[in-house]
Amino acid sequence: MTLIVQKYGGTSVGSPALIHGVAAQINRVRARGGQIAVVVSAMGDSTDRLLDLARELTPEPDACELDALLATGEQVSVALLAMALRATGTPAKSFTGAQAGIMTSSVHGKARIESIDANRLQEELAAGIVPVIAGFQGIDTNGNITTIGRGGSDTTAVAIAVALRADECQILTDVDGVFTTDPRMVADARCLDRLSFEEMLELSGQGSRVLHLRAVEFARKYNMPLRVLSAFRASAGTLICAEENAVEAARVAGIAFNRDEAQFNFIGLPDVPGTAVTVLKPVSDANIDVDMIVVSAARGGKTDLSFTVHRDDYVQTEKIATSLIKGFPDTGLVSNNAVAKLSVVGVGMRSHAGVATQMFETMAREGINVRLVSTSEIKISILIDEADLERAVRALHESYGLDRS
Amino acid sequence: MTLIVQKYGGTSVGSPALIHGVAAQINRVRARGGQIAVVVSAMGDSTDRLLDLARELTPEPDACELDALLATGEQVSVALLAMALRATGTPAKSFTGAQAGIMTSSVHGKARIESIDANRLQEELAAGIVPVIAGFQGIDTNGNITTIGRGGSDTTAVAIAVALRADECQILTDVDGVFTTDPRMVADARCLDRLSFEEMLELSGQGSRVLHLRAVEFARKYNMPLRVLSAFRASAGTLICAEENAVEAARVAGIAFNRDEAQFNFIGLPDVPGTAVTVLKPVSDANIDVDMIVVSAARGGKTDLSFTVHRDDYVQTEKIATSLIKGFPDTGLVSNNAVAKLSVVGVGMRSHAGVATQMFETMAREGINVRLVSTSEIKISILIDEADLERAVRALHESYGLDRS
Repeated sequence: MTLIVQKYGGTSVGSPALIHGVAAQINRVRARGGQIAVVVSAMGDSTDRLLDLARELTPEPDACELDALLATGEQVSVALLAMALRATGTPAKSFTGAQAGIMTSSVHGKARIESIDANRLQEELAAGIVPVIAGFQGIDTNGNITTIGRGGSDTTAVAIAVALRADECQILTDVDGVFTTDPRMVADARCLDRLSFEEMLELSGQGSRVLHLRAVEFARKYNMPLRVLSAFRASAGTLICAEENAVEAARVAGIAFNRDEAQFNFIGLPDVPGTAVTVLKPVSDANIDVDMIVVSAARGGKTDLSFTVHRDDYVQTEKIATSLIKGFPDTGLVSNNAVAKLSVVGVGMRSHAGVATQMFETMAREGINVRLVSTSEIKISILIDEADLERAVRALHESYGLDRS
Repeated sequence: MTLIVQKYGGTSVGSPALIHGVAAQINRVRARGGQIAVVVSAMGDSTDRLLDLARELTPEPDACELDALLATGEQVSVALLAMALRATGTPAKSFTGAQAGIMTSSVHGKARIESIDANRLQEELAAGIVPVIAGFQGIDTNGNITTIGRGGSDTTAVAIAVALRADECQILTDVDGVFTTDPRMVADARCLDRLSFEEMLELSGQGSRVLHLRAVEFARKYNMPLRVLSAFRASAGTLICAEENAVEAARVAGIAFNRDEAQFNFIGLPDVPGTAVTVLKPVSDANIDVDMIVVSAARGGKTDLSFTVHRDDYVQTEKIATSLIKGFPDTGLVSNNAVAKLSVVGVGMRSHAGVATQMFETMAREGINVRLVSTSEIKISILIDEADLERAVRALHESYGLDRS
C-alpha cells in the first residue's frame, strides 16, 4: 500500500474553517486507497503570539522553557485537526513530537532530529488510523521538549516520511508549486513539474521560500521524493527528486532573487595571505552572516575583496568596515545597501555551455550593470542595483525560455 | 529539610505581571530555606478559549483530542512561570503532567490519578531546582494525554505533595482562607485558622468553592495537611488537617449555602417498597444530580418524598415529575425553584448537643419557614425560601458566635 506523508503549514490551519478544508483534503487522499500521515504547523500567527507573551514576561526567556511554551502551538493544531477528521468519521489521533518518538539534540530552539522511533506511528497506520503529528518539535534524551527552529515542520515531515519509508513527502502550501521565478514579478512564470534536489537547494537558499532548506537537504540525503503542492486547490504541484529521475533537465530551471542585500567593496587590499580573514572575521564575530564573497585576481601586489550581507546588518557592518579600513591606509571602501542578488539555477548548466554568456549578454542588452558575480556548479549569481531587479528577472526569464514548458 | 507544594490557580497567573508576582512569592518561600514544588493552572480564561475553539470546530469534539488540546493551557503557564523564576536567578524547570510522571486512568476529561513516578521531580528538588508542574493533566498507560477534570489542579497538587512526602500542600487563591461563611454576605465572617478534613468536605461540597472536593478527599486519605491562603498578600490562611490536630474543635465551624436549588415534593405517595426508586430513577436516568432526599415517616399507608436538584435542571425535572405523578392518582406534587440550601457544619456537633435546636430556634425567631431538613454526623442542612437566605445566614452566624474567634 502506498504511504504518503503530508505537511500543512500554519496558514493552511489558521482557522476552524481552514482545518475542515484540510480534513477534507486528507479524506480525498484516503479515499484513493493509500495510507496517510500528517504533519502540521502551529495555527496562523500563534507562534508569534506565544513569543510575544514570553518577551513581555522577560526580555531573554530561557531557551528550554521557550521550547516548552512554543511546542503548545503545534499541539493545539494537531488536536484540532484530529478532532476535525474524527468528526468526519475518519479515525485519527494527534501526536506531540515526544509522542511520535521524535528524538532530537538538546540545542533548544535549534535542535536537530537525531532519530525517530516510528513503532507507535506504524501501529496506528496499520490500524487504519491517520496520525496527525506536531511539526517543529521533539524531545531530547533528558525528556525535555525541544524545537527544531522555525520552518522546521518541513524537516519534521521529511524525517517522518523517511522513518515510515513513505513513498512521497508532500508539502502543502499556499502556492501551486515551485515556479521558474516569483509569479508576482513575472506574469508568465511557470510552475515546474520536476526539479532535482540540488536545484531546489539553490532555489530555496536564494529566497524562493517555498521549502525549508534543511528539509530539502534531508530529503536528498535519504532520497525521499518531495512534492510541493497547493493546500487549497487540486494540482500536481512540483516533484523534487534525485537528478536521474528528473526526466528532462532544462538548461535553467528557475531564477531566484533576493532584494535584501548590502554590498561592501574593499579596493586595493594588500595581496598577502590572511588579508581576507582580517576583513571577514570581525564581521562573522559580530554574528553577521556573509553571503557572497568575491576576491579579485591580484594586480601589482593589490587585490579587491567584495562581500554582501543582509541589509538589516548594513549599519553594523559599515561600522566594522570603517574601523577595519584604518588598518589599511591605501585601501578604499565602497558600500551600497541598494543592491539585489539574482541567481540562475539549473543542473542543465553542467552540460549546456553558454548559460553564463547568455546571462551577461542579456544584462548588457538591458544596460544593467553587473556589480559582482559568483558561480557554483549549477548556479550563477549576480549582484545588481535593486532598481534594475525586475527588469533583469523578466529579461532573463524570457531569454532562457522559462515561460515555455 | 521542609518541603512545601504550592498550587496557584488560573487567576493568580492570568498575566505576565501576575506571574512575576507568583515568582516573587515562591522566592520568598525559598529564602526561608525550604524546598518547594509548584503546581499551576492554565492562565485566566485560556481553558475556556480553547474549549470555544474546539466547539467552533465541531459540536462534539473527541474527548481524547480535547484533552490534548486543553493540556496546552497549563503547559503555557508552567513554561512562563519557570521562565519568570529563572529570570530572577532561581533555578526552575517546567513539567507537563506526563513529564512529571503523573499516570492516570484513560477516562478523558475525567481521568483519575493512579500513580505518580516522582523520581524525576525528586532529582530536580535534590539539585536545588524548583519543579513547576502543570496541574489538571496526566498521561495514561497508552501514552495519551489526559485531563482530570476542571478544578483538578488542586487534586494534582495534593497528589504531588503525597508522592513527594511534602510537609504541607498550600492552595494559593484569591481569598485569605476558609471563612465561617461567605464574607460578601456576612461582613464579620471570620477566616478560620484550622478546620478538619471532614468539615472542609462538607463546606466545599456545599458551595464554599475555595477548594476542589476531590483534593480534600485525597488529602484526607493520605493525611496531607492542606493550607488555603492568599496568592496576593501575606497571611497564614486556613490549615485543613486531621481532626486530632485541629486543636479547638468549635461546635460549628462554618455556614455554607447554595442558592441554585429547586425542590420537588411528592405528597401522599403509597408507602410500599420501591416507591422512592420509581420516583428517583427517571430523574437520575436523565443525568440530573439529586442533592437532598427526604422521605417522611409513613402515616396511614402514605408517605411524602422531597428532593432537590440544581435549578438549571428545574424545567427538565418538572417534566419528569409531571409524567410520574400520573402513575400515582392520589399523590400531590409541589415544586419550587426559588429555594436555597443552608448548612451548618462542624465536628463539634458530635459532642455538643443542641446545635440543631439552636438552628431551629433561630429560624423561628426570624420567622423563616424551614421547608426541608437533612442531617449528617457533622452537618445540618435546611432548605428555605431563597428570599430568606441572607437573613438566615446572618442570624445563624451571630447565634453560633462565629464572628468571635
